[in-house]
Amino acid sequence: MDSFTATAERMPELRARIAAHPEQFRVLTGERPTGRLHLGHYFGTVRERVRLQSLGVETFVILADYQVITDRDVAGNIRENVYEAVLDYLAAGLDPQSSTIFTHSAVPALNQLLLPFLSLVTEAELHRNPTVKAELAASGRALSGLLLTYPVHQAADILFCKGTLVPVGKDNLPHVEVTRTIARRFNERYGEVFPEPAALITEAPELPGLDGRKMSKSYGNAIALGMTADETATVIRRARTDSERSITYDPENRPEVSGLLTTAAIILGRDPGELADEVGDAGAGGLKTLTIDAVNDFLAEHRARRAELTVGDAAAVLREGNERAQSIAADTLHEVRAAMGMLY
Amino acid sequence: MDSFTATAERMPELRARIAAHPEQFRVLTGERPTGRLHLGHYFGTVRERVRLQSLGVETFVILADYQVITDRDVAGNIRENVYEAVLDYLAAGLDPQSSTIFTHSAVPALNQLLLPFLSLVTEAELHRNPTVKAELAASGRALSGLLLTYPVHQAADILFCKGTLVPVGKDNLPHVEVTRTIARRFNERYGEVFPEPAALITEAPELPGLDGRKMSKSYGNAIALGMTADETATVIRRARTDSERSITYDPENRPEVSGLLTTAAIILGRDPGELADEVGDAGAGGLKTLTIDAVNDFLAEHRARRAELTVGDAAAVLREGNERAQSIAADTLHEVRAAMGMLY
Repeated sequence: MDSFTATAERMPELRARIAAHPEQFRVLTGERPTGRLHLGHYFGTVRERVRLQSLGVETFVILADYQVITDRDVAGNIRENVYEAVLDYLAAGLDPQSSTIFTHSAVPALNQLLLPFLSLVTEAELHRNPTVKAELAASGRALSGLLLTYPVHQAADILFCKGTLVPVGKDNLPHVEVTRTIARRFNERYGEVFPEPAALITEAPELPGLDGRKMSKSYGNAIALGMTADETATVIRRARTDSERSITYDPENRPEVSGLLTTAAIILGRDPGELADEVGDAGAGGLKTLTIDAVNDFLAEHRARRAELTVGDAAAVLREGNERAQSIAADTLHEVRAAMGMLY
Repeated sequence: MDSFTATAERMPELRARIAAHPEQFRVLTGERPTGRLHLGHYFGTVRERVRLQSLGVETFVILADYQVITDRDVAGNIRENVYEAVLDYLAAGLDPQSSTIFTHSAVPALNQLLLPFLSLVTEAELHRNPTVKAELAASGRALSGLLLTYPVHQAADILFCKGTLVPVGKDNLPHVEVTRTIARRFNERYGEVFPEPAALITEAPELPGLDGRKMSKSYGNAIALGMTADETATVIRRARTDSERSITYDPENRPEVSGLLTTAAIILGRDPGELADEVGDAGAGGLKTLTIDAVNDFLAEHRARRAELTVGDAAAVLREGNERAQSIAADTLHEVRAAMGMLY
């Protein structure tokens, strides 16, 4: 049985424990602020965070600004991307009173954990990490020191707040394994400081992009959460479809049409095949109208809440989150330095 | 012309500039607190620091506590080693008012620089570093993430205080090159923040250990600065020599005897061949008496000053140095974050 299957089999029991004792868990989750958050993020991760928060699980959301430069030369509009993400979090229902939203670059004590943690892994182990391999291949560049060490930095993200729960897709399971290894080795060597966090495999449906591939800003196929209704209509109307008149759900042979069907189906909680039957001879135009309405209805409330927020609100939330994260990180770092005999 | 020769040729001019304008330079130097400082450290590095300080060059001395675990599992008595080193620095003449003595682990803002810097080097470049290769071979272990990234951490040590001068032996020249590369790449990418530091090749004579090899705690051939006169006499008396009665200076065929002669000669500012002639038939016993007297006379003042100092003095100096280093590191990190667009 592989590691994913083994972890997946533990999920029902883990979910039951979370529901019964949410106060025993601390979630660490987040993303790289490489661009605007889109519907794929919403269904893939943001919704799950709001759900965990509503269960009463303390949640930490990191905007991993340093990780933006693992695979590119320029940081781009990191600041703007960070503020926009915070606005989307707030609009989606994250409550800054119970969820700590913060950035890497503002929490030196977290980043310092990279040092002792780097001593606990070998270069060979770093190389074996499948996500590092995949991102290296995708970047088409020489492996940077930052990309190579990125799983260790992520271990610092998770362990600085003694996170016990890390929501992941299948691809990110190895990161949690690295973190567990680092926590275990640290504890063995210096005494018990860190919990070994559990992976919480999210059961989110994968929202396709406008071309049927995975929704991703870098593919240019994304519907950003921050778009207006008109902008949304425009990008969906422009989506490429095929020349067949009647709409059918056939992901293999009709990826674009099936992608739009899947998007509408996920949002409406319907079956894509049924939707296809309903659209039928109304063709691509009818399908797009259906999808536009589904997306715009779904995002109406999010957009209304977002419209009430300013960049100043995002900055204030971030300042508070960064302060809280720094305070927790300083406590953890103090414990780590004490365990290692480095308090002077 | 290789890089060492090229750098060495620039030394006379650099030394002249330092003497003429000491206020234009900032030195970063230090060591790993893996054990007590010994006479090899004194002649190799500590004396040069005191010299630079007396010229009026602002000096930063780092006790690289995290680097102790690059090539070993346990931190050992880092705390004690750190305090002992501070006492030796003070006894040797470092003035905590003009020289900032600090440790890695107490300066999170310095350590955070590792993150952006790691993005500026490739794994291949890290692998090419000769010191990493040499230390890897010496450690006899798998390459840890910390050892691999150690030159980047050292770049953070040098650049956090915008150090412009790094005293090095020939072996450490590549580290300064890595630091120059990182400073240059950062400036090109994000705007001018860092100076490119110059290597200052120290012309220190290499003090041999009691067995004629390089003096090193790990060889067990060292005379610690903190030893008493009696302890010094005991370890020198115990030093292995050869069976030939008459003392001659012959490093190739008589490494142990020649090592003791070199030690005495460096300390007394004499020629080892002349000393050999003077000892002559007094043999190993006579040579050891000469060496013991030379070392003990030389260290008498150091020991007297050291005896007046307590661990509390060391702790106080370190607290002040750590605070000063953290304040400077915080300013530099702020500049770095501003340049990268990561201020929120």
